[in-house]
Amino acid sequence: MNDIKFPFLEHMGAALKSFGKGEAEVELNVRPYHLQHVGYVHGGVISTLMDNTGWYAAASNIEEGYTVMTLEIKINYLKPTSGKYLVASAKVKRQGNTTTFVTIELEDEGSLVAYATGTYAILKDS
Amino acid sequence: MNDIKFPFLEHMGAALKSFGKGEAEVELNVRPYHLQHVGYVHGGVISTLMDNTGWYAAASNIEEGYTVMTLEIKINYLKPTSGKYLVASAKVKRQGNTTTFVTIELEDEGSLVAYATGTYAILKDS
Amino acid sequence: MNDIKFPFLEHMGAALKSFGKGEAEVELNVRPYHLQHVGYVHGGVISTLMDNTGWYAAASNIEEGYTVMTLEIKINYLKPTSGKYLVASAKVKRQGNTTTFVTIELEDEGSLVAYATGTYAILKDS
Amino acid sequence: MNDIKFPFLEHMGAALKSFGKGEAEVELNVRPYHLQHVGYVHGGVISTLMDNTGWYAAASNIEEGYTVMTLEIKINYLKPTSGKYLVASAKVKRQGNTTTFVTIELEDEGSLVAYATGTYAILKDS
Repeated sequence: MNDIKFPFLEHMGAALKSFGKGEAEVELNVRPYHLQHVGYVHGGVISTLMDNTGWYAAASNIEEGYTVMTLEIKINYLKPTSGKYLVASAKVKRQGNTTTFVTIELEDEGSLVAYATGTYAILKDS
Repeated sequence: MNDIKFPFLEHMGAALKSFGKGEAEVELNVRPYHLQHVGYVHGGVISTLMDNTGWYAAASNIEEGYTVMTLEIKINYLKPTSGKYLVASAKVKRQGNTTTFVTIELEDEGSLVAYATGTYAILKDS
Repeated sequence: MNDIKFPFLEHMGAALKSFGKGEAEVELNVRPYHLQHVGYVHGGVISTLMDNTGWYAAASNIEEGYTVMTLEIKINYLKPTSGKYLVASAKVKRQGNTTTFVTIELEDEGSLVAYATGTYAILKDS
Repeated sequence: MNDIKFPFLEHMGAALKSFGKGEAEVELNVRPYHLQHVGYVHGGVISTLMDNTGWYAAASNIEEGYTVMTLEIKINYLKPTSGKYLVASAKVKRQGNTTTFVTIELEDEGSLVAYATGTYAILKDS
């Protein structure tokens, strides 16, 4: 599933960096259109990166013939960032039969900027 | 504050629809780049719309000389949508001295697609 | 399911007040042991009331032969309360096939004290 | 602050196990009144343990003359437990000037049962 294309992720300019065994990383080179009105990276950029990275981590761990879909995610914005390069990294903490739980960190050059936890439903491919 | 420009919101193609007295609406005409890999609107599009609409609702209710910033938001994705026109509407439920709490609904032609609650910090303009 | 006994809820002194069609209310007469160290109602009392009320609302709306279980809940504490009588009221906002989403309000004599959103899994009775 | 008494925590039978430098643990010997209707530990017991442990972790890291109060907490219930001995452990992930962010794990004999993230407001003692 590491070759799945997300049009919105591409539109945003983010890219999958690593993928496998319940873990994933997505990276973003920050551009002016990623900012909000006072020059920090927009919260929506951060939530998009984190949700999608959590999706990759969850998807990396399931059987053939299944897919995952976000049920819920909570993002805590820990400090504003105006960094140039962001990396989101996600890890499956516990996988059940119908849902999987993932934690996601967002770092700006090694500094923790945001933290998220999400639940992803495990669904049969339709 | 209804004339504040969010580069990322514009990049995404969303627009402020209404604003005032602790409430706000943001609308989006869905385009192909808003979708994920199986044709539904990407979760990041939804979280961006909801967070930003919550920001507008929070910002619409504070005094001159202050601004707001998202501390945390949880988004519950209630069903996937492949709709053409989405509206996020937010309402301040309780405003304190240093934080304000907002609920946000996302509808696809009157059908509830996602629900979020967020806390926004109230900060002096720097 | 309105006759189901929750030992911990009884231990705490709370009681089901209304139940049916995706809605429920639970009430609590506040006693000294419900407080934290500076005299406000303990957050755990509030989270217990809200989670259980959400459970009742979810359970009131499902078919015979099924039960519900909390997957996740987020509680926003909007202001501390030292009130004598609390009522939690919950409402199903959207029910799917495998999960149901509920919003829960906690009031102290008509004043909103806390707000929660929760996801409950719908499971076959074992 | 490790000698602060929480009447509700005592009423529940839980006890502080370790405390200091942004970390804390609370333990509980499970009794029949901690259960819900089908014999698992009640979600409210779990949320109370986790919130209070997060409070201790946050409180352990602040200056004299200040206190902390929960703004919000999200609990993900990862699997039901009917264990006899539960330990909640919390850690401050990032402390700002006005809020501190904490992650909390709940284990039943080394197995992860629930995961929470919470924001605690840092307030001057009144």
